[in-house]
Amino acid sequence: MRVLVLGGDGYCGWPTALHLSARGHEVGILDNFARRLWDHELGVETLTPIRPLHDRVALWRELSGRTIPVFAADLTNYAATADALAAFEPDAVVHYAEQRSAPYSMIDREHAVFTQTNNVAGTLNLLFALKELRPDCHLVKLGTMGEYGTPNIDIEEGFIEIEHKGRKDVLPFPKQPGSFYHLSKVHDSHNIMFCCRIWGLRATDLNQGVVYGTMTDELARHPGLVNRFDYDEVFGTALNRFCVQAAIGHPLTVYGRGGQTRGFLDIRDTVRCIELALLNPPRAGEYRVFNQFTERFSIADLAEKVRHAGQKLGLRVEIRHLPNPRVEKEEHYYNAVHTRLLDLGLEPHALSESLLDSLLNIAIEHRDRVRTDVIMPRVDWRSTRNRTRPAAASDGAAGEAPGPLGAARETPGAAIIFK
Amino acid sequence: MRVLVLGGDGYCGWPTALHLSARGHEVGILDNFARRLWDHELGVETLTPIRPLHDRVALWRELSGRTIPVFAADLTNYAATADALAAFEPDAVVHYAEQRSAPYSMIDREHAVFTQTNNVAGTLNLLFALKELRPDCHLVKLGTMGEYGTPNIDIEEGFIEIEHKGRKDVLPFPKQPGSFYHLSKVHDSHNIMFCCRIWGLRATDLNQGVVYGTMTDELARHPGLVNRFDYDEVFGTALNRFCVQAAIGHPLTVYGRGGQTRGFLDIRDTVRCIELALLNPPRAGEYRVFNQFTERFSIADLAEKVRHAGQKLGLRVEIRHLPNPRVEKEEHYYNAVHTRLLDLGLEPHALSESLLDSLLNIAIEHRDRVRTDVIMPRVDWRSTRNRTRPAAASDGAAGEAPGPLGAARETPGAAIIFK
Repeated sequence: MRVLVLGGDGYCGWPTALHLSARGHEVGILDNFARRLWDHELGVETLTPIRPLHDRVALWRELSGRTIPVFAADLTNYAATADALAAFEPDAVVHYAEQRSAPYSMIDREHAVFTQTNNVAGTLNLLFALKELRPDCHLVKLGTMGEYGTPNIDIEEGFIEIEHKGRKDVLPFPKQPGSFYHLSKVHDSHNIMFCCRIWGLRATDLNQGVVYGTMTDELARHPGLVNRFDYDEVFGTALNRFCVQAAIGHPLTVYGRGGQTRGFLDIRDTVRCIELALLNPPRAGEYRVFNQFTERFSIADLAEKVRHAGQKLGLRVEIRHLPNPRVEKEEHYYNAVHTRLLDLGLEPHALSESLLDSLLNIAIEHRDRVRTDVIMPRVDWRSTRNRTRPAAASDGAAGEAPGPLGAARETPGAAIIFK
Repeated sequence: MRVLVLGGDGYCGWPTALHLSARGHEVGILDNFARRLWDHELGVETLTPIRPLHDRVALWRELSGRTIPVFAADLTNYAATADALAAFEPDAVVHYAEQRSAPYSMIDREHAVFTQTNNVAGTLNLLFALKELRPDCHLVKLGTMGEYGTPNIDIEEGFIEIEHKGRKDVLPFPKQPGSFYHLSKVHDSHNIMFCCRIWGLRATDLNQGVVYGTMTDELARHPGLVNRFDYDEVFGTALNRFCVQAAIGHPLTVYGRGGQTRGFLDIRDTVRCIELALLNPPRAGEYRVFNQFTERFSIADLAEKVRHAGQKLGLRVEIRHLPNPRVEKEEHYYNAVHTRLLDLGLEPHALSESLLDSLLNIAIEHRDRVRTDVIMPRVDWRSTRNRTRPAAASDGAAGEAPGPLGAARETPGAAIIFK
């Protein structure tokens, strides 16, 4: 199968591209490298020293004999998007190419508007390009479990049968997203559902939980393939961030009471879920939703697990409850159905002590690269003007964010920079 | 009360501004005149010869002694939006300032992306400006009944209590919008609900039905105050369009079987509903939804009513069922709750023969202004490249839409052009 991975230079996109390539699919990567730009904007770096994409794919070719063409293109540039689809002729596209951080979207007005217009317009362009050029292509879109929020009823996979005043219908599950980023994914979901209905496109919307881990079988083949590992308050997600904090002796930063419960999954399951969705495509016109996570934990649970694992490695791990910078329930009901990927054959990796050990050891290995000034939360949901850049990175401007990088940039077309 | 009407030069905004001004409120208008630009883009004109806004407000001042300052500003320009709020210091804003035509949003990719980014980013800017400058200001946002689509259960006002697997919650009513325009309103609704939750803003989201009529008590005071009356396939809504068609002997254009049922209301009720919402504001942090319509009709019902009324005036009225350019159910269940505005004291104007007579007479009066080449539907939901401009308006370019006008324009600030 010919699969174009949009955002294939990122944390989930890169291991997905290699996994699919290793399994015999013809894989291409489209990326605008915005994620690397945002590291510069925020003054942060992935814990692991990742290589430039052209090095990574060259190394993968040496190791595997398999070529991954790269399209340097931005989805908000329609011509570039269409050029890439026309050139690669994918049977499926896996769409990770969005601004994916909730805190980034909550920095200020510019970042909120950027996140929504970037994600929504990029996805709209993709939908139009698919309809015009590849109408049978399967769109596998990364959504998030955060689209649902935390309702007081069980969360179903995308749709719910509602009986009301003696009548029944199956309707989209009500959404209560918790940031401008999560809202952008809800907007995307509605747009995609509509395009499947009017144009007969086929799409799988994967409402993914919080991903942890950094290693897959393919990445393990060479240190030069190493994946990103974000630990900063803006792009670092809970479990990975806790492991780095434990490794460097920083208190684990639990926001509020820590009863916030979410679905989680190992990145090895992310790449497998994508392939399962690809191998079992929806029919033309079908918009389907899978809840893509394997276990649920509260934030406090996770912190305890990391403390326990850290102590066994001889680390002194403190848990600190901080005032919650987010507006969210800290104790709530949470039960979300996630059977559709299991039905397709997913065999989940449960969160194990050995996984935590391995994460902690990676963090310890790279602990000299950790910048401690980017760990504490600076982005407060209640403020419209948050200061994100560490003091050292600001020169007189009091660390005010200068606006999202890449917002006005339009790449000149879908240049194939490696083939 | 100080009320800023955003989009106050438009079909609903203008009569709303005058109604509120006549009732003793201090009213300002903010508009970017995009609606007038789109007439030029599409080669259409309102049936009624409306005057420029500066003439209209000057005439209103002569007639009423009341001043309506005008802010020439675009909501997608944050500085201009903030300047206007800072200068006018409104207690409430009534937000009509969006691209509001479903067919316009379905012309092609450019119009779809423009509609969503314009409406979503404009409303986001407004939310940030309110939070930063007028956090207690009441936002009255115009949504649409079309956000709900046509579910097989009763439509509630914004929220529905769902009992599921033995648990209960009150959740946002599931949305199934039917165009990129309707989708933009759903996106807005989610964004506004979120900002009320995190920032304590107060908002009323009015899910309005299809508005008909053109006259209110205030507009009737002088011909120079006349409101727009759109009959073209892009901006003309069903009942008004049918009346013009009847007046000029054009068959009434019923799309498909005509069983499509929607909520409708008289424009005199629109302006009254706005005032009722303003006089009964939500509490801080509250996001509430009113379904703003008074009666429901199927499209075939409406066509029959216009035929009947037309025949009594001696017109020969033919009804023509066209292949439906939209993707929508043509026979379906439709029952939507609309009690909250009635509870606040709305006394609805039912659709009467005298109203139809008056609309038909206005259409007859201006029938020499009708362009028959803009009536038949050209915008097909199934196509991504629709030809909208009448042949005469195109010069060699085969009538291809050149992209939405106003998309890249940024007004230089909130110039007060009349005070």
